[in-house]
Amino acid sequence: MILTLSCPDQPGIVARVSTFLFERGCNILDAQQFDDQETGVFFMRVVFEGGAAEDLREAFAPLAKGFSMRWAIRDPKVRRKVMILASQQDHCLADLIYRWRRGELPMDLVAIVSNHPRETYAHLDLDGVPFHHLPVTRATKLEQEAQIWALIQETGAELVVLARYMQVLSDGLAAKLEERCINIHHSFLPGFKGARPYHQAHARGVKVIGATAHYVTADLDEGPIIEQDVERISHRDTPKDLIRKGRDIERRVLARAVRWWLDDRVLLNRTKTVVFTD
Amino acid sequence: MILTLSCPDQPGIVARVSTFLFERGCNILDAQQFDDQETGVFFMRVVFEGGAAEDLREAFAPLAKGFSMRWAIRDPKVRRKVMILASQQDHCLADLIYRWRRGELPMDLVAIVSNHPRETYAHLDLDGVPFHHLPVTRATKLEQEAQIWALIQETGAELVVLARYMQVLSDGLAAKLEERCINIHHSFLPGFKGARPYHQAHARGVKVIGATAHYVTADLDEGPIIEQDVERISHRDTPKDLIRKGRDIERRVLARAVRWWLDDRVLLNRTKTVVFTD
Amino acid sequence: MILTLSCPDQPGIVARVSTFLFERGCNILDAQQFDDQETGVFFMRVVFEGGAAEDLREAFAPLAKGFSMRWAIRDPKVRRKVMILASQQDHCLADLIYRWRRGELPMDLVAIVSNHPRETYAHLDLDGVPFHHLPVTRATKLEQEAQIWALIQETGAELVVLARYMQVLSDGLAAKLEERCINIHHSFLPGFKGARPYHQAHARGVKVIGATAHYVTADLDEGPIIEQDVERISHRDTPKDLIRKGRDIERRVLARAVRWWLDDRVLLNRTKTVVFTD
Amino acid sequence: MILTLSCPDQPGIVARVSTFLFERGCNILDAQQFDDQETGVFFMRVVFEGGAAEDLREAFAPLAKGFSMRWAIRDPKVRRKVMILASQQDHCLADLIYRWRRGELPMDLVAIVSNHPRETYAHLDLDGVPFHHLPVTRATKLEQEAQIWALIQETGAELVVLARYMQVLSDGLAAKLEERCINIHHSFLPGFKGARPYHQAHARGVKVIGATAHYVTADLDEGPIIEQDVERISHRDTPKDLIRKGRDIERRVLARAVRWWLDDRVLLNRTKTVVFTD
Repeated sequence: MILTLSCPDQPGIVARVSTFLFERGCNILDAQQFDDQETGVFFMRVVFEGGAAEDLREAFAPLAKGFSMRWAIRDPKVRRKVMILASQQDHCLADLIYRWRRGELPMDLVAIVSNHPRETYAHLDLDGVPFHHLPVTRATKLEQEAQIWALIQETGAELVVLARYMQVLSDGLAAKLEERCINIHHSFLPGFKGARPYHQAHARGVKVIGATAHYVTADLDEGPIIEQDVERISHRDTPKDLIRKGRDIERRVLARAVRWWLDDRVLLNRTKTVVFTD
Repeated sequence: MILTLSCPDQPGIVARVSTFLFERGCNILDAQQFDDQETGVFFMRVVFEGGAAEDLREAFAPLAKGFSMRWAIRDPKVRRKVMILASQQDHCLADLIYRWRRGELPMDLVAIVSNHPRETYAHLDLDGVPFHHLPVTRATKLEQEAQIWALIQETGAELVVLARYMQVLSDGLAAKLEERCINIHHSFLPGFKGARPYHQAHARGVKVIGATAHYVTADLDEGPIIEQDVERISHRDTPKDLIRKGRDIERRVLARAVRWWLDDRVLLNRTKTVVFTD
Repeated sequence: MILTLSCPDQPGIVARVSTFLFERGCNILDAQQFDDQETGVFFMRVVFEGGAAEDLREAFAPLAKGFSMRWAIRDPKVRRKVMILASQQDHCLADLIYRWRRGELPMDLVAIVSNHPRETYAHLDLDGVPFHHLPVTRATKLEQEAQIWALIQETGAELVVLARYMQVLSDGLAAKLEERCINIHHSFLPGFKGARPYHQAHARGVKVIGATAHYVTADLDEGPIIEQDVERISHRDTPKDLIRKGRDIERRVLARAVRWWLDDRVLLNRTKTVVFTD
Repeated sequence: MILTLSCPDQPGIVARVSTFLFERGCNILDAQQFDDQETGVFFMRVVFEGGAAEDLREAFAPLAKGFSMRWAIRDPKVRRKVMILASQQDHCLADLIYRWRRGELPMDLVAIVSNHPRETYAHLDLDGVPFHHLPVTRATKLEQEAQIWALIQETGAELVVLARYMQVLSDGLAAKLEERCINIHHSFLPGFKGARPYHQAHARGVKVIGATAHYVTADLDEGPIIEQDVERISHRDTPKDLIRKGRDIERRVLARAVRWWLDDRVLLNRTKTVVFTD
């Protein structure tokens, strides 16, 4: 079982939570706590064995209420439902599917949505995951997003991954997906926001490029950062080389962020994240 | 205050410990737990505010005994006493002194020992730290180690740092300094054990070199690893270049290991370490 | 066009070579030279535009002979023929195929050989590349290698990539494939040679793991290293985690080595390599 | 000897240059060329043995003129004169001095200038390098810069290193020091320009921080980037931690940039640099 929580800091939180677990015969395997002294918020993630999720949730609710906690108790054996939105560039999509099949990402892929037709991914074995072609233009954006939202509700998707989806979500959809929509931005934010970041990086002559996985919010490229990574480049690298090298960074940064999310390691801390990494 | 402990795993450890702290009015700021399922040993580090070290220790002792804990409660405001052993190469020594003066390493430097005379470090301002020239030859090794040991006892040094000391400690001295003697080895162990590792690395044609900070044990180059880091090299690098690049790696790896030790982040796990990094 | 060469160092090599190119109307776009002062061997790689490969080769031969050069002039538009040998673990195979399809690896995949049947890679679209199931046992190793060799000759494969093939090539086959067979070893050589390196790494308690791409030679795990990379790990990582993290390192290290080889960037320097990286 | 040049690309440059060297009995040890196909500028760096700098310069001038080259021939045994400007934070200053004394930076330190008095660096052994206290206020900036400039002329300083100098040079002084003034900016540019970048990074919640060495130009924080490096951080890091971790990055990034400059590896390419790294 995994328990995650955040609440205003006060003495006794760990004592109460761990005593709660002990009294129900649970054994803590791994735990991390963090007290953000700037915001006064306390964060905790506990992995334990023993107990049934439903019972624990019911029993924990009053305690949680007393501390004004945002919290969740989850059985990691119950896989989260995930929807991937993709566009023409398929490297992140292909990578996520590979890792999912391989068992690296414990999730149920409930839908793959693209604004491009299935043929775009002719060489990709989707392994039975339903594919939805939802084309979009400026004029039809509203309708298309409504279709996406309907699909999210229908499939019960808990996480939406923008795997180089390249479409900006409307404020409305972003708000509905708070804390459960992860985007991969192909730059080391906050450097090179906006379009064509690798061309921007080439023009500026940087010596290191990066990618950023972040929660999607109404503020474009300003969502809470979950993970970032970088790679060295040189003057020999053309924008095309940067795009190629960037694909590798994007793939691993997005995969890590998704994996950590599935593992309940990512906790929201206002405009930032607390990530209890493995 | 910082509480660290390790003990055979069993349910209730966190509950008992955190309740103990709560009942004494302590507030947990940061905590990490880890249960090594291979060895069945549980590790914990808790940073908290409130309480007096001496009182807490006395009160905690019975609880600790019940769980067969190895444990410590330490007031981080009480600085640890540290002795540095150095040899001709002074980059690690100079770096540690700089970081200490700068406030990066919260320790009391009680002695600097070298088998080379003070003049070797003519350009180094030791800032009043006592310097001891203890030359050593094969024939006088025993006597010199006895002098080192006397100095450790006299100064109350809790940690001994081998800052490129280049002398192998005898099994006897190594045993006395278990868990409180850190060495920096100038290779990415277990590759290139023994002498002249950069020359070995050059001869083998590796593309990355590294350094390793580890606890000193009777088994040369086999002590529990605390920290490692690496840097890329190329065919253009001569052994001299590797030595130069290696100095940078050695300095930062050793400094991190010492800092983590001073911060009670390094816990021994048989032949390995648990490091609750920041 | 790409010209690569190595020869005993002497004055005038660059002058003769570049004058040769200039006189034939060729323009140098990128070039790197390196003089190994230890071995006295000079290495050069020149990318230039202009000229026809066949004509240039004929004209260059006498000059090359005068300097006792090992050399090649290649038209990068003529794709190299590559055979991949794989085993049960398909992450390197899948990655190479993805990169090939995506245009990151300019090669003609002429054969995929495995000691496991095609069904092992059921989810992998081989895109028409001939697949050969060549099972192997101790008793049939000789015969199987003969089949592999026959296939290499038949397909004209210039490069053989061992994509986690897990079978040791016989000395005989290794010798035939000198400088054109690349293996990925799942450790940071020379650390953890031999079997189950991630388990070895876990047991030793290292803080960084790595992978190594190297030329295959008769000396197991001792071939000239082409590329290495690493990733940080912690005490929380089980051998299973290391294997998972390692897959990522293996994929990118092998892909880089293959890409550099295809790009004529890897030159043999006795037991080492000169890699003129991009 | 080291020859560096850049000029509009045209066929025959390498042939002419290498033939020139060959005819004068010089032997090329290491060389790199790069043709920027975007700007049409060709860059070259050649290390060779043989010849006398003065003679070679005289003989090379007509050839250089014919190709409209920016060029230099330098004897690496003649050390470059370097002035360091520092402010209260002394980690980069201390690091440069250490490396210089150690032989890592082949330069003559002709002056250390600070807007703080000598006592600020009481623990630093300047080893006889003249120290100049040139305080500065808004009102006296012009006069202080005039003093700096006079000192540069007087000492013959060829390179000015801003080692966390924290004062913005006027456009006029920046222009005079084109291509010979290196600054270390304590962020991974272009992210977090301006003041207090580590506080900005903390507020934004990035997962990686960095530092940037660049040529100083009139455009603040926009000068050609020479080198960048990064380090991972986590939610546990306070701004104070970032500042501490940043010091390590700043030191090594600045040291690399200075070393490469001294080694004639940094060539200006409009608003970017070509760095022929070792």
